[in-house]
Amino acid sequence: MKILINEKGKKFVAGADDLHTDHGYIKKEEITSSKSGDILKTHLGREFRVLEANINDYIELMDRRCSIILSKDLGVMAAYTGLGCGQRVVEAGTGAGAATIFMANIVGETGHVYSYELREDFSQIADKNVKGFGLENVTLKCQDVAEGIDEEDVDLVFLDLPKPWDVVENARDCLKSGGYLAAYTPYIDQVKLLTRILKKREFSDLKSLECLVREIEVKDKGVRPKTRMTGHTGYLTFGRKV
Amino acid sequence: MKILINEKGKKFVAGADDLHTDHGYIKKEEITSSKSGDILKTHLGREFRVLEANINDYIELMDRRCSIILSKDLGVMAAYTGLGCGQRVVEAGTGAGAATIFMANIVGETGHVYSYELREDFSQIADKNVKGFGLENVTLKCQDVAEGIDEEDVDLVFLDLPKPWDVVENARDCLKSGGYLAAYTPYIDQVKLLTRILKKREFSDLKSLECLVREIEVKDKGVRPKTRMTGHTGYLTFGRKV
Amino acid sequence: MKILINEKGKKFVAGADDLHTDHGYIKKEEITSSKSGDILKTHLGREFRVLEANINDYIELMDRRCSIILSKDLGVMAAYTGLGCGQRVVEAGTGAGAATIFMANIVGETGHVYSYELREDFSQIADKNVKGFGLENVTLKCQDVAEGIDEEDVDLVFLDLPKPWDVVENARDCLKSGGYLAAYTPYIDQVKLLTRILKKREFSDLKSLECLVREIEVKDKGVRPKTRMTGHTGYLTFGRKV
Amino acid sequence: MKILINEKGKKFVAGADDLHTDHGYIKKEEITSSKSGDILKTHLGREFRVLEANINDYIELMDRRCSIILSKDLGVMAAYTGLGCGQRVVEAGTGAGAATIFMANIVGETGHVYSYELREDFSQIADKNVKGFGLENVTLKCQDVAEGIDEEDVDLVFLDLPKPWDVVENARDCLKSGGYLAAYTPYIDQVKLLTRILKKREFSDLKSLECLVREIEVKDKGVRPKTRMTGHTGYLTFGRKV
Repeated sequence: MKILINEKGKKFVAGADDLHTDHGYIKKEEITSSKSGDILKTHLGREFRVLEANINDYIELMDRRCSIILSKDLGVMAAYTGLGCGQRVVEAGTGAGAATIFMANIVGETGHVYSYELREDFSQIADKNVKGFGLENVTLKCQDVAEGIDEEDVDLVFLDLPKPWDVVENARDCLKSGGYLAAYTPYIDQVKLLTRILKKREFSDLKSLECLVREIEVKDKGVRPKTRMTGHTGYLTFGRKV
Repeated sequence: MKILINEKGKKFVAGADDLHTDHGYIKKEEITSSKSGDILKTHLGREFRVLEANINDYIELMDRRCSIILSKDLGVMAAYTGLGCGQRVVEAGTGAGAATIFMANIVGETGHVYSYELREDFSQIADKNVKGFGLENVTLKCQDVAEGIDEEDVDLVFLDLPKPWDVVENARDCLKSGGYLAAYTPYIDQVKLLTRILKKREFSDLKSLECLVREIEVKDKGVRPKTRMTGHTGYLTFGRKV
Repeated sequence: MKILINEKGKKFVAGADDLHTDHGYIKKEEITSSKSGDILKTHLGREFRVLEANINDYIELMDRRCSIILSKDLGVMAAYTGLGCGQRVVEAGTGAGAATIFMANIVGETGHVYSYELREDFSQIADKNVKGFGLENVTLKCQDVAEGIDEEDVDLVFLDLPKPWDVVENARDCLKSGGYLAAYTPYIDQVKLLTRILKKREFSDLKSLECLVREIEVKDKGVRPKTRMTGHTGYLTFGRKV
Repeated sequence: MKILINEKGKKFVAGADDLHTDHGYIKKEEITSSKSGDILKTHLGREFRVLEANINDYIELMDRRCSIILSKDLGVMAAYTGLGCGQRVVEAGTGAGAATIFMANIVGETGHVYSYELREDFSQIADKNVKGFGLENVTLKCQDVAEGIDEEDVDLVFLDLPKPWDVVENARDCLKSGGYLAAYTPYIDQVKLLTRILKKREFSDLKSLECLVREIEVKDKGVRPKTRMTGHTGYLTFGRKV
């Protein structure tokens, strides 16, 4: 997928049609025949640079009607669970599909992401987003993960649900030995209850954490952390089936 | 690769020989014929659970003679650069190979990690570690990355060097359009200088950040962040070739 | 000084005149004869509660035309320097006087705050603010602290200046043995240079730090840190004359 | 009170007797007749510098048999409650008296700290510590604060107790209008329960927070936050009587 970047760094998705912007339009033929690094001009003479979209461009520009998990949390989740190429993952709930796309990008064509979502409207947005990025290793299921998980022997179950404890038993059944459950929850009360259930179900290597990212501002007059930061997103809780 | 876990959660690598522990030994034949989830007994009757080692078990147990980058920083680096299956990565320096193994696990067999290291002793440790994990998508090079990078059109250049600015020009040459440079540096002074050079070399999407992970302690008497935490590891600086 | 709080928690200063609000007015006679805890009604029947203003109400409501140092940083500064009743303090620059008032509130009538400010407009705002709170232990000086400090044998020199290093020698001269220099600076580069100069001038107990406050949101649906937080204000650097 | 500092920066209290150290002794007559800034020599010729102890020296060196609240938390507590010279404070529990001494240092002779402690052994340590610093504005009470507070019209009630909610009603009774309750608790569960009770008892301006201090390491090879830090001490919860 191509994106076009204007002189101010603003990014546009190059879709199936001509690109219309505040600074004029570019014909779709020009876009189609361009390659990454080319500079195209609108009919008003403004320059746009062509770039092959990577996953972060895509997630930034896609339809994000419901709130998505930030990169920092997905990255830490992937690192702590050892997510890698070829793995099979079960996710619930799908939401707009940001985590789905993130994980599908890592597990690749030899792996697979099965993602459960109760709400049909979210599942449809996610479907559009997943297909738009050209992923063929994702199966979206509009069904309740608490009522059963169809897959077996998966490497990771990733839960972004209000009540992840309801799924612990199903998650345990579908995980392979040594596989991970990871849950993302905004409230500390959820961490507490989930941990209790994970212990009861004999998950090992229990760990809960919070990841804070501080951006650093490097300017001529000095270096400092940015004066604004995200104060909290959610906690990550991990357990491992042994 | 198999690991064996004793009753207290301590992990042991199952090597080519019998496993000798404080609690007795287990014969290699037993280990070889076991599968994940089995419980083996030492000649003293103590139980050890067999587990297929995942990447984090392995990095934890491998020879780590030089300091390694923590999971949190690797995870955030991977997420911010969109690292995924099938990508080609250049790394410098290799060190003990923890980041190498982490990235090789993600890019998979259709991708590749080329890792440069000046010091021969480190390169040898890394070679042992990479091979021990069974990775076949890694090329270790005991040569100075500042003198040239052999690869072209790579997705990511990851630098864990005292003077990453010396490599910015070479990194730019070997990156594909839209590819990322990411550098890990302990000192803020390094962030400052590197950012200046990245700007000069027209990298875009410059970003520097610090990732803090706070573990949460969930006990019967209450929930709180752990009283000890890692105060600082290093900064991550990102730039993108456009 | 009295403040009046409406039903939504919004605070108003009770000045010399009638109080006019969106919800009607209250006559000054009523305000004058009221005491803390009373409830007054506007001519439209809306209730306002009378409260004796404390220092934080006052700083919140006073003229804050230039940016002020947050409570968290002032509190940590006071605690690390052992600021207490009866101490004598030199401050530069005054700004709107928030730190001045904070310190004057602690040192009390047996102590004193001498505050230097180059800009006359700031000094006038500070003068109004200090007098408005009824403090009689503050001397404001519209003069350059780098050209000399008139006081001797002071307990604390507190610097909120772009170039605090220019004042280190003067600060040393005016401090009593065992007294503290404390400086507030937004940039890490300032911390670095100031520390070098403090070392040269043989200050002991050098320490630099950053204070982060995370507010906790306690709601029925759960407890978590607030999703927005101040990412950075400034660093505090301390040295002690021995 | 005098302290003596050796060449390595280690501090010693100058008591009623000769000072004996690893590097020789100094006679009490010499110490008594010395003044701040003097350098005394042991009989082995090693130099010790005399310094008038400030409150932080004292708290560092005093008998701290039970864990004490760190300066950062005391400083933020004082700043958020507007603690100042002349105020009257009720504290529970006293512990070793660190917070007692901190607050007594700020409220001065025109103010007073009344401190409740159930355990007699703690109360005795605190008594020794408070008297040792020469404070005359402190009253220690070895009694249960949940059974009643003798004082009235106080500016601040500061609670460092396992179950601060048991004291909320008594605290409300003894506070003056506009006065603050502040509680220090290690667990988030305590914050939750206390907040609920404070709401029920109609305290206003409810706020809970956590204060993190990151020390900055300034060395020739670079500047960075220290690699070790205190991950968590306790939460501070505030409410105001209106």
